[in-house]
Amino acid sequence: MNTLSVDLGERSYPIYIGGNLISDPQYLAPHIRGRKVMVVSNETVAPLYLDMLMAALSEFDASSLILPDGEEYKTLETVNRIFDALLEQHYDRHATLIALGGGVIGDITGFAAATYQRGINFIQVPTTLLAQVDSSVGGKTGVNHPLGKNMIGAFHQPQCVISDTDTLDTLDDRELSAGLAEVIKYGLINDKGFFSWLEDNMQLLLQRDPHTLTRAIQLSCQHKADIVAADEKEQGKRALLNLGHTFGHAIETGMGYGRWLHGEAVAAGMLLAAALSNAMGWIKASDVARIETLLKLAGLPVRAPSSMSAQQFVDLMSVDKKVIDGTMRLVLLQDIGHAIITDEFDPDRVLEILDEYRENA
Amino acid sequence: MNTLSVDLGERSYPIYIGGNLISDPQYLAPHIRGRKVMVVSNETVAPLYLDMLMAALSEFDASSLILPDGEEYKTLETVNRIFDALLEQHYDRHATLIALGGGVIGDITGFAAATYQRGINFIQVPTTLLAQVDSSVGGKTGVNHPLGKNMIGAFHQPQCVISDTDTLDTLDDRELSAGLAEVIKYGLINDKGFFSWLEDNMQLLLQRDPHTLTRAIQLSCQHKADIVAADEKEQGKRALLNLGHTFGHAIETGMGYGRWLHGEAVAAGMLLAAALSNAMGWIKASDVARIETLLKLAGLPVRAPSSMSAQQFVDLMSVDKKVIDGTMRLVLLQDIGHAIITDEFDPDRVLEILDEYRENA
Repeated sequence: MNTLSVDLGERSYPIYIGGNLISDPQYLAPHIRGRKVMVVSNETVAPLYLDMLMAALSEFDASSLILPDGEEYKTLETVNRIFDALLEQHYDRHATLIALGGGVIGDITGFAAATYQRGINFIQVPTTLLAQVDSSVGGKTGVNHPLGKNMIGAFHQPQCVISDTDTLDTLDDRELSAGLAEVIKYGLINDKGFFSWLEDNMQLLLQRDPHTLTRAIQLSCQHKADIVAADEKEQGKRALLNLGHTFGHAIETGMGYGRWLHGEAVAAGMLLAAALSNAMGWIKASDVARIETLLKLAGLPVRAPSSMSAQQFVDLMSVDKKVIDGTMRLVLLQDIGHAIITDEFDPDRVLEILDEYRENA
Repeated sequence: MNTLSVDLGERSYPIYIGGNLISDPQYLAPHIRGRKVMVVSNETVAPLYLDMLMAALSEFDASSLILPDGEEYKTLETVNRIFDALLEQHYDRHATLIALGGGVIGDITGFAAATYQRGINFIQVPTTLLAQVDSSVGGKTGVNHPLGKNMIGAFHQPQCVISDTDTLDTLDDRELSAGLAEVIKYGLINDKGFFSWLEDNMQLLLQRDPHTLTRAIQLSCQHKADIVAADEKEQGKRALLNLGHTFGHAIETGMGYGRWLHGEAVAAGMLLAAALSNAMGWIKASDVARIETLLKLAGLPVRAPSSMSAQQFVDLMSVDKKVIDGTMRLVLLQDIGHAIITDEFDPDRVLEILDEYRENA
């Protein structure tokens, strides 16, 4: 078992990474303040891991709530179901929520914790690769609005993150690939050496070699923890973590939440960002090809959906948290391993790239 | 015009108190970051003051949203209407929300600001006495749940509070009295001299003498600002501001939101707290009588509604943000001007007091 730390002063917390952690009470107990705990999970994950987690919580007064599975349920209405359950069972300010599931469960549960009685504690127990390497760390919580991804939310840090790598054994291949998109992202924005390592080790990752997967999770979490510690509320550098996300969110919103997995949309978005970076003369065509090869090797889409027009894309991208006073900003690449956030790109090139990098184009 | 300050480090902000402030751009402009502003008001207040405020915002790109009036609309659904408007009009993270209205508008708008794109700026322009002396200051935002008052929310401090005392001229008598309940509260919890001053000046306050009203607002805001500066997130002392509120919230929830005004429920709740404090031997019967006299003089109810049973009351009171691990805590009085938060009261006495201090009892 390895422990990383997210250093945020009095809001600092550990990330535990390893096998067989969910069933071990020692990781949970020190991070629970009161007696009452509610585990929030979904219909896919609960049958696999809920009993194990509840057993580890036997010394607490614990209940559970099982939500439907999917991005399309990441809504205010679903958050309200958590409030209903908390109030019906008289959960007070010292209660703790535990998110057992992927990124959607973590985001919803974290937002409920951020806003129930103006804020209660919560713990992340991510069970997908995407949640373990990205969404469970850093305190971004929230839900979608029909007009935009993650538009409703709050910054609310967990008390700890428990990443049990054994849960990846039950992940389906599509979910594994979606998580790899965010792993590749850290290489692209911050760490050229890690990108090369991923090129060398992608087959082992896809074969779910435990040692290689754990190494990828650790390195990803370390990058995320460092960036969050430097810029908790995304005033600057943290926005780099959104490489591919402005394009990706447009795909998720435009196609209807849940059609593309978040990581799939981010993968296509990262290639669009790379192609735009090349069109601006910042990275070489051979780098774009190298990125495309790795994403495809990871089983990820590298083209925008054919059913969305370039104009629809740009309209959806204009609703983005990085837009300031009407000016769109994008995370683009100066090199593999060096991302920047900039509004200095040619909007016409964005339209051209969207036409060129489209399914069946 | 007087300026007070809420001292919260980098989240500090001014409270401006005086006549003719809404129409004066100089108080707003320094606290608006971007170009885009949305004013949120209600059907009662907007016809009176919205044009004036929009004129003062002429240098900005400002729109407005008018909500129905009443505590029964303080819901997640109403907050979602604000999100709809913000997204339809492409409001970004640098936008500012302005709450123009009473406590309900301030709480809803503040919560929307706390959670839109994980937090945007907002400004309070309170137009009721209750909002000017209490709810606009201190950063508590939120909405009600059918099972409990203010159960969904966040701490989110405004950029400034603009309390235009001229708006009190159009307040109806019932709303004025409701505001006086919170004014009397500051005397009860913190300042015996202020309580005596209120006994001497209640007639002038009811006659809306501008000088006397402004003095009451200033002293109330100073008390609130001092307590919030000492305990922003209500880890301790700030809970004293909830004198009468546990009983009062039970009345508001039990009777149906909007039937009793918040200040009315708090008034009855403060007398219940005083009577319980007397039953515990902490304050004299003559003090209870003195409090009852002042509340009645202010036009406020001093009895619990006859339609609620004592048991229904206690059930509703068990859903309260001051409950910790199942133990109910109440704000009670050791003296006029000295409140404490305690769980050391006799639950049987609570039931007795609820039976004794009831309409038509």
